[in-house]
Amino acid sequence: MLSLSMPQDFQNHLSNIVSSIDAELDRLLTAQLSAGEIERPENLVAAMRHGVLNGGKRLRPFLVIEVGALFDASLQETLQTGCALECLHSYSLVHDDLPAMDDDDLRRGQPTVHKAFDEATAILAGDALLTFAFDILSSSKCHPSAEVRCELVSLMSRAAGQGGMIGGQVQDIEAETSTPSADQILSLQSMKTGALIRFACEAGAVVGNAPSKDRNRMVEFGKTIGLAFQLADDLLDVTSSSAEMGKRVGKDAEQGKGTLVSLYGVEKTRVLMNDNLSHAEALLQPFGSKADILRETARFVVERSN
Amino acid sequence: MLSLSMPQDFQNHLSNIVSSIDAELDRLLTAQLSAGEIERPENLVAAMRHGVLNGGKRLRPFLVIEVGALFDASLQETLQTGCALECLHSYSLVHDDLPAMDDDDLRRGQPTVHKAFDEATAILAGDALLTFAFDILSSSKCHPSAEVRCELVSLMSRAAGQGGMIGGQVQDIEAETSTPSADQILSLQSMKTGALIRFACEAGAVVGNAPSKDRNRMVEFGKTIGLAFQLADDLLDVTSSSAEMGKRVGKDAEQGKGTLVSLYGVEKTRVLMNDNLSHAEALLQPFGSKADILRETARFVVERSN
Repeated sequence: MLSLSMPQDFQNHLSNIVSSIDAELDRLLTAQLSAGEIERPENLVAAMRHGVLNGGKRLRPFLVIEVGALFDASLQETLQTGCALECLHSYSLVHDDLPAMDDDDLRRGQPTVHKAFDEATAILAGDALLTFAFDILSSSKCHPSAEVRCELVSLMSRAAGQGGMIGGQVQDIEAETSTPSADQILSLQSMKTGALIRFACEAGAVVGNAPSKDRNRMVEFGKTIGLAFQLADDLLDVTSSSAEMGKRVGKDAEQGKGTLVSLYGVEKTRVLMNDNLSHAEALLQPFGSKADILRETARFVVERSN
Repeated sequence: MLSLSMPQDFQNHLSNIVSSIDAELDRLLTAQLSAGEIERPENLVAAMRHGVLNGGKRLRPFLVIEVGALFDASLQETLQTGCALECLHSYSLVHDDLPAMDDDDLRRGQPTVHKAFDEATAILAGDALLTFAFDILSSSKCHPSAEVRCELVSLMSRAAGQGGMIGGQVQDIEAETSTPSADQILSLQSMKTGALIRFACEAGAVVGNAPSKDRNRMVEFGKTIGLAFQLADDLLDVTSSSAEMGKRVGKDAEQGKGTLVSLYGVEKTRVLMNDNLSHAEALLQPFGSKADILRETARFVVERSN
């Protein structure tokens, strides 16, 4: 087995997998028809592509694939679940950027979908990406067992829904006009950002048919790096520049949004983030060197500069 | 078997089934938690309920249930698929009513979701309803066979997606600034409105494990009454009042929207609608009196006053 203890090896591996993800997303997001469809309107497909094929980090599909690899799942299968999840994640960004929501003009250095197209198209492109995520997940290419595919549909809809990502987003909006406690911030972030990262890790274990002890460990791993990811994001919002991030920064403070950085300060937040990194590494310990890529992924999550 | 040749019997049956649908939607749309969820934010659940529990006709779930009954599917199962479909249909109305889309203040005589709440909440409530539809469909309450549930997820995502309802909606917006031909209007309406009605009929056959010949017949039945439904809608838009419809009328003409009524006139449209009704009745012929309710349903679709 390839040893990936060197960060350069990890970087190469990451960029190879990201290329596979981008190529598959490109293939999926075409005007090609499925049974019973009209021609997919060109402008809609273009808006969906704009929202997805934009140089994203692909962290969520990468996690599905690497957790899957830990349990010897085939890349062909985890790639499908990963792409479904990336379509879903991308829809959430397209809708978050809308004027009625965060009202952002820039995403990854490019105009947001409602800026490049228009607001109605951005709403519909987001809806179509969310819907398409479930189309991908229900295909037998995703997994030969319909039981597994149904479980993925169920887990993803809960991670993304009213008691998951969307619920967290609503709490986040409500937090703008209140003074949330640290626990409330942790809870809302755990759903708004954490739920999909947890799902990514659990989905890899489900596709790889992991025993329930290992599956639970992967859910915990996802929970831990999800929190580390959010803490890193909040830190980057106060310490980095717009040019590095490819989007507006400093906006948490500007919107008076309570984050753990605003409650704890930069130093204590950094300590908490590193504690989570250590916990994530401890969770991987039983898997030995087979988990090297996931170890590097956890480090990448906290050390990234954008 | 209950003979339902009398319209009064049909009305009673319809209102009994609609009560069951409303009760199940009410039960599904509560703050009750699923595994891995945070508390569902109260305001979000309230907005979702406002978008769904509003006295809708429930035509789509009724079709799932009645086509299912033709193949002896259990009401318990078809009710779940029907409620999933109604959540999906309701999300599409919540998003269609948004200021960036149709900008409607009134729906079924009540303020639209973005009027009763706000725009961000309406976008998120729509997203949550769409997501929840797949949650409902993936549950074993929907059907004991995961193969069947996966097929329902796949069919619904295609009926609702870029090459289905959303694609039709995009074409509809594009048609506002062009002069579509009759074929183009038929095609876009067949997706915008028709796709979910076709899915309703196909889903009933799938849940009832119908042989493929009968299933295809039900798809054709759905296609036919879907078109009749749309023609009735376009006719109502020119002939009825806001009070009867519970929403703004005359807006097709106001928006310069090409409909078959504007191309063909009221009389020819009415003839076309009745031709479709006759075709729908012919499709039910092999099922004898067991299809009486579906026969009445087809008549109800064209004879309704709102």
